[in-house]
Amino acid sequence: MAEKITPRSEDYSRWYTDVILQAELADYAPVKGCMVIRPYGYALWENIQQALDRRFKATGHVNAYFPLLIPESYLRKEAEHVEGFSPELAVVTHGGGKELEEPLVVRPTSETIINAMYAKWVRSWRDLPILINQWANVVRWEMRTRLFLRTTEFLWQEGHTAHATAEEAMEETLRMLNVYKEFAETEMAMPVIAGQKSMTEKFAGALASYSIEAMMGDKRALQAGTSHYFGQQFAKAFGIQFLNKNNELEYVYQTSWGVSTRLIGALVMVHGDDQGLILPPRLAPIQVVIVPIWRDEEQKRLVLEAAGQVQARLSATTRVRLDDRDEYSPGWKFNDWEMKGVPLRIEIGPKDIENAQVVLARRDIPGREGKTTCPMDALESRVAELLTTIQSDLYARALRFREENTFYPRNYAELAEAVENGFAFAAWCGSAECEAKVKEDTKATTRCIPFEQPAEVGPCVVCGQPAEKQVLFARAY
Amino acid sequence: MAEKITPRSEDYSRWYTDVILQAELADYAPVKGCMVIRPYGYALWENIQQALDRRFKATGHVNAYFPLLIPESYLRKEAEHVEGFSPELAVVTHGGGKELEEPLVVRPTSETIINAMYAKWVRSWRDLPILINQWANVVRWEMRTRLFLRTTEFLWQEGHTAHATAEEAMEETLRMLNVYKEFAETEMAMPVIAGQKSMTEKFAGALASYSIEAMMGDKRALQAGTSHYFGQQFAKAFGIQFLNKNNELEYVYQTSWGVSTRLIGALVMVHGDDQGLILPPRLAPIQVVIVPIWRDEEQKRLVLEAAGQVQARLSATTRVRLDDRDEYSPGWKFNDWEMKGVPLRIEIGPKDIENAQVVLARRDIPGREGKTTCPMDALESRVAELLTTIQSDLYARALRFREENTFYPRNYAELAEAVENGFAFAAWCGSAECEAKVKEDTKATTRCIPFEQPAEVGPCVVCGQPAEKQVLFARAY
Repeated sequence: MAEKITPRSEDYSRWYTDVILQAELADYAPVKGCMVIRPYGYALWENIQQALDRRFKATGHVNAYFPLLIPESYLRKEAEHVEGFSPELAVVTHGGGKELEEPLVVRPTSETIINAMYAKWVRSWRDLPILINQWANVVRWEMRTRLFLRTTEFLWQEGHTAHATAEEAMEETLRMLNVYKEFAETEMAMPVIAGQKSMTEKFAGALASYSIEAMMGDKRALQAGTSHYFGQQFAKAFGIQFLNKNNELEYVYQTSWGVSTRLIGALVMVHGDDQGLILPPRLAPIQVVIVPIWRDEEQKRLVLEAAGQVQARLSATTRVRLDDRDEYSPGWKFNDWEMKGVPLRIEIGPKDIENAQVVLARRDIPGREGKTTCPMDALESRVAELLTTIQSDLYARALRFREENTFYPRNYAELAEAVENGFAFAAWCGSAECEAKVKEDTKATTRCIPFEQPAEVGPCVVCGQPAEKQVLFARAY
Repeated sequence: MAEKITPRSEDYSRWYTDVILQAELADYAPVKGCMVIRPYGYALWENIQQALDRRFKATGHVNAYFPLLIPESYLRKEAEHVEGFSPELAVVTHGGGKELEEPLVVRPTSETIINAMYAKWVRSWRDLPILINQWANVVRWEMRTRLFLRTTEFLWQEGHTAHATAEEAMEETLRMLNVYKEFAETEMAMPVIAGQKSMTEKFAGALASYSIEAMMGDKRALQAGTSHYFGQQFAKAFGIQFLNKNNELEYVYQTSWGVSTRLIGALVMVHGDDQGLILPPRLAPIQVVIVPIWRDEEQKRLVLEAAGQVQARLSATTRVRLDDRDEYSPGWKFNDWEMKGVPLRIEIGPKDIENAQVVLARRDIPGREGKTTCPMDALESRVAELLTTIQSDLYARALRFREENTFYPRNYAELAEAVENGFAFAAWCGSAECEAKVKEDTKATTRCIPFEQPAEVGPCVVCGQPAEKQVLFARAY
């Protein structure tokens, strides 16, 4: 906490790194592009995991674990897939002191190894659907890396399902995208736009990819989750066949879907300010911090006793921390916990004890405006209420920010200007050429073709040809 | 479930593999020595994780995540450590299509990478203790592998702590060993013997290692958890120094401790029988399975309705599954869930509905003896009671089995015979020569020097020289 955080207006990218390092979410590891997720960052990840895992299980999924090391030849079984991933592979060539007969790749994603197992497990329609998710680490040799957003190794979950019909698989694809959307909005307080990826931007090996896209504090887009429909593409590559109810041999229909530790980067950028992190209460490792204030030993004794009672009363329903450290002043602690993004601070001093009250200070509203006093006997209800309010206010603020920075360009000049300043929803003919031209000229890419479409679309803003859909253009992480 | 499980008496090792494959705990992966943990096995691991993680957090620990890939040079910083692990390393030599300047090893354990970070994070006594745990995958290139017990890749947790004093670090070492012991006995219903490893058997780089040792169904020992005291050995190798309260620079004192997915292998072998798994209720993914019995459609409707009510009543407090599959007979289902080790089965048919009752069948007591009827209005309490009873009966049975197969040899001939038939507690002078002779002659190793020692020890059973301690000799996994 000793160092200063670079203001966002000065250098957004340095602000981002400053916040992560100083809030101790993560640190750089000795291997290029790798990071250490420190306890505070990992606690955030644990809360994200739990909130997602609950949703996966509620929709009928189970977890499993597949090997880290994949025979190199497996990657080559699906042509598009290997083309997409081979430049990013980390390869194990030696094991137990000897050179391996066949090199093993460290999984960049697990379609190949998982489908090899499904081919072994699936025999009849009775074995379907398979609804498996995996929590795991993956490695992709990235050229340019950034903490949480793009790291050589990252943590994620990857769902891999197999179904008896195309309809069922497509339903699953969209169901899980919707789980991600609901999770992002409810738990992360992060509004997202859901839609389909263009053919250029889809996952290597998928027939169709879908994503949720969020606007970060610098108005750039971040892909926060993806869900893919594979049809029978991988099933044919790996020979996953089943006897259907008519006793005919058929290939299964598949999906995969994932989110990763990059969600932590999204949390930083969607809500953070120049003081540091602002964490949504539902995911914050510490929802409430109590800072006792005293001048002498006698006051200290009284205040710590009262603070301890406040902690005890809240701890059944709230993740609460009492900061009773001797070696730091209250002011230092205020700054420290603000930087760490704790949603609510409780201040308690001798005067407060006299008045049977505490002071509540909201992280999302700095200074006096965010402070209220709370009578001691309303403690539990007021804290619960405020945490709910903070959660919904964070969402509303992020949504307002996105709306204020969203544009609807009607021609190419307007598009070019729009993507300098935020999201641009524009008519697009669907051609890869128009997409490439926009990318070349403006660095903006098609993020997704949103499910929500206007009644009238108009001609393509790039080529003027008829367009059936609007697409979201933005510069992206 | 189609195949037969080899009886234990015929071939214990095949029985073990049969149970794991047929109960779908795990499967072989295409890479030699690797396995897939299937959903049923992974659900067991999730329950183990939760029960342990709760205990780690209750003792002040936090989770974090450190990189999978470690520069090869880091391993060499601690001489004993690299000697112990270098024969087992998997090495990444290529990344992103290029040969790496320095090869990276896939972590076999994380002391080196974690201590490199601690050297960066620790400055003063205020930064101590560091009480970090990591849930992760590790890779050790093993020659002979066996599902769960010894696999090239496995899942585990590794705690790594740093302290200001030797006393504190030693306290931590023993505290965590004790957490493991309590966990094994309470949750796994598995009695264990806790003690110190001999110098030959200790962890590479530790000053002292401690373990818990359990007796499997074939009377062999399995090391179920270890806790290590490092003193300042790694701190010196990695330069982890802090300013103590006297403002002097000092090296930290450290520990590490871990358990792995091999615990699942232990569960199989401690409790299982010729019908398959027997899972302790506290860890069982499914604690109660309801098998409805009907002959015609009218009965089916009635029975399924009643079974659904039973499920609903139990589901608030119990992990319960209703097996309403049409395509299998009740008898087939009985066998299937017995093989999968579900602790309690509820049978419900038309007669039971008439009599307002269900039949409860204990997995740990086969046949009629384990069956009771339960009036419908006592359902919740009787099920809860029975699950508790099964848990403690499993523990008692495993303890009795161990005691019946534990011997106290007074001379070398008795020792040699004892280790053929179980555990042998025997006086040992402490010399590596005597230890080596026993291993050479009998294949038994020193498992640990138990904390609980008899009042009088007697002379070393190998060399006849004076001995201060008894040691546990056994053949081990």
